[in-house]
Amino acid sequence: RIDAARLWQSLMDLAQVGATPKGGVCRLALTDQDRQARDLVTRWFHEAGLSVRVDEVGNVFGRRAGTDPQAAAVATGSHIDTQPSGGKFDGNYGVMAGLEVVRTLNDRGIRTRAPIEVAFWMNEEGSRFTPVMMGSGAFTGVFTPDFVRAQRDIDGLSVGDELARIGYRGPVPAGEVPGGMFAAYFEAHIEQGPILEAVGRPIGVVAGALGQQWYDVVVTGQDAHAGPTPMALRHDALLATARMIDRVNRIALDEAPHGRGTVGFAQVIPNSRNVIPGEVRFSVDFRHLSQDGLDRMDAAMREGFAALARDCQCEVVLQQVCKFEPAQFDADCVASVRHAAEALGLPHMDVVSGAGHDAVYVSAIAPTGMIFVPCKDGISHNEIEDAQPEHLAGGADVLLLAMLERAGR
Amino acid sequence: RIDAARLWQSLMDLAQVGATPKGGVCRLALTDQDRQARDLVTRWFHEAGLSVRVDEVGNVFGRRAGTDPQAAAVATGSHIDTQPSGGKFDGNYGVMAGLEVVRTLNDRGIRTRAPIEVAFWMNEEGSRFTPVMMGSGAFTGVFTPDFVRAQRDIDGLSVGDELARIGYRGPVPAGEVPGGMFAAYFEAHIEQGPILEAVGRPIGVVAGALGQQWYDVVVTGQDAHAGPTPMALRHDALLATARMIDRVNRIALDEAPHGRGTVGFAQVIPNSRNVIPGEVRFSVDFRHLSQDGLDRMDAAMREGFAALARDCQCEVVLQQVCKFEPAQFDADCVASVRHAAEALGLPHMDVVSGAGHDAVYVSAIAPTGMIFVPCKDGISHNEIEDAQPEHLAGGADVLLLAMLERAGR
Ligand SMILES: NC(=O)NCCC(=O)O
Ligand SMILES: NC(=O)NCCC(=O)O
Repeated sequence: RIDAARLWQSLMDLAQVGATPKGGVCRLALTDQDRQARDLVTRWFHEAGLSVRVDEVGNVFGRRAGTDPQAAAVATGSHIDTQPSGGKFDGNYGVMAGLEVVRTLNDRGIRTRAPIEVAFWMNEEGSRFTPVMMGSGAFTGVFTPDFVRAQRDIDGLSVGDELARIGYRGPVPAGEVPGGMFAAYFEAHIEQGPILEAVGRPIGVVAGALGQQWYDVVVTGQDAHAGPTPMALRHDALLATARMIDRVNRIALDEAPHGRGTVGFAQVIPNSRNVIPGEVRFSVDFRHLSQDGLDRMDAAMREGFAALARDCQCEVVLQQVCKFEPAQFDADCVASVRHAAEALGLPHMDVVSGAGHDAVYVSAIAPTGMIFVPCKDGISHNEIEDAQPEHLAGGADVLLLAMLERAGR
Repeated sequence: RIDAARLWQSLMDLAQVGATPKGGVCRLALTDQDRQARDLVTRWFHEAGLSVRVDEVGNVFGRRAGTDPQAAAVATGSHIDTQPSGGKFDGNYGVMAGLEVVRTLNDRGIRTRAPIEVAFWMNEEGSRFTPVMMGSGAFTGVFTPDFVRAQRDIDGLSVGDELARIGYRGPVPAGEVPGGMFAAYFEAHIEQGPILEAVGRPIGVVAGALGQQWYDVVVTGQDAHAGPTPMALRHDALLATARMIDRVNRIALDEAPHGRGTVGFAQVIPNSRNVIPGEVRFSVDFRHLSQDGLDRMDAAMREGFAALARDCQCEVVLQQVCKFEPAQFDADCVASVRHAAEALGLPHMDVVSGAGHDAVYVSAIAPTGMIFVPCKDGISHNEIEDAQPEHLAGGADVLLLAMLERAGR
């Protein structure tokens, strides 16, 4: 068993870096706050006896040698960057749980056959620099290192320059691991959803992750005065958009329980109370367990939006801007997580991750599993994000046993 | 008949003040541009032999004496402030048409029994300082002069200070007219809607104006992550809002052709593509020919919004922020407009103003009528606002004859 109090204390210490008045954390990727947190965690890695390597896109790995010089590492990790009004646990928990696994092995003098690695991935949140999960994406070959380093924030600063500025543009090529690619990768994470809490199970055995397709939509009508323009002669882009938002919801409900559909962003132009809006820009986020499901949602949306635009005498243009394939995690890794929970007597259930995680990218190149623990009211990406110390400890215990099962004694 | 070329030239000369690159006008109330336009029009008033008075809230009146010293004035007017990306005709046309009436009477040496007045009202647009139609509202007692002068723009500058700065805080008490309140008031205006153009009639005989009720609405749900949050557990404030926008449209269609319903403004919080929105703020603009109709729309909205919010597990709070009673113009003034169009052989039709105008306030304290002329594609509050010289001339001819009928020779 890990040391629950030490894990909690590390989380609280790390949360001091970029702490916000409301109890959250603001630690955007590659800012001074991120540098400070990276320096702190790297120091803890060294203090735990890990050898540290930094790759060319700023992913950091702490390695504990195994007894078998030929064995590929069993790895864990997550991220320590946060949303602008983020919480203490998203990402940070997975990294601190990994460190706690190493500290526990050290305390007990346990040697593993395979090396153990703990990683923190660069810019998971995608808040300062898009796209999201940038570091793990580069590690797994989804993005080239050049592409990643060329991305800029709204002030025009690039990932490459900011990596160099904070001292985390490392020498190791992205994707290179001593002894070859991970034999297994596990990521512990808060659920960021309400199910574990609602069902009352402290451990989620994550079988995979929903596929995602994101779109930008522009609806064009004609600005006109709200008073003198008869209802029948309007080209009301907001009315058309309203019906499209309702349609996105219906399309997702038609795919229940495996489909999700969200409009999170909408911008109305000119946005004046007595002007019929001539243009609306909005986003669509579709998620589904299967690519077939995503394809059905895509088709239903295209057909539905075209008809709704026509009804409102508007035009609609749709562009897919992001895509994650549905991920099925490795059966053996998932089984290791389940075994660990059972061995510990922790109530658990199989779940699917609705959110993207670094583990989803890693799962394309290494056997991968994830462990979810409940978070309060399912709330994340929010300063009030919260989790119970005993749930966090339970998840780290599961991580310890699952990694031990894969790494061998 | 008025001099069509001179009217057009005056409009074009006035449009130079605050001219925008795209052919529009930016002349916000009480700015340096407004001062320049006020100075120019005041000079033209003097050149036309009018005696000028400025009231305490910056309304300006040019007066041509009548032959009967006891007679109350027959007045006309509109406004010369514009929207930030306004056109050359909205408001300006009514003032230049009034000036053209005076110039024509001068040219022909026509004396009227009643005095003739031409007014330009302070801050009709309500763009820099709210509320709209501020000057005519103060003139007719809807607002006190102190209330009006205390209003501030987003830089904190007050109407009172800006009036003093540009030299238009006059000595005359608001609402005071030599010889007593207007015997009649006429306002010529572009239609700002598509009907006259569509039907092909160059003169709209305005029978009255739609009543207006404006609302601010706040829908509150709960921010949550678009991925892990199941559809059934969401409190999606934007989904609820989308259905409310559709409902506003249906409520207006149920009152066709006399009802109008518009959502022109909406703000989504936090407005991030993978966050279910926890809050949306939006506006509702209802208009109707009758107060009964407005009451029905109000009731249908309150009942509908409450149910739609409930369905989406959200809360809704509604606040009425603005109210104009439906206005019925004076039967005799309306008849004078119709007679004038008939005498001139101009095709005309009875219409109702969907927009608010200074004339709507004036109609509460003096017999009032309005004359509409077509504008291109019904577009207004836009730099591309356009109108045909012959339509503008026709409207001014109607104004001349209607005023002569009321003022007497
Ligand atoms: N875990 C997480 O918040 N990922 C961001 C991408 C997503 O919306 O799933
Ligand atoms: N004429 C005009 O644009 N008035 C503004 C108030 C309204 O929306 O009717």
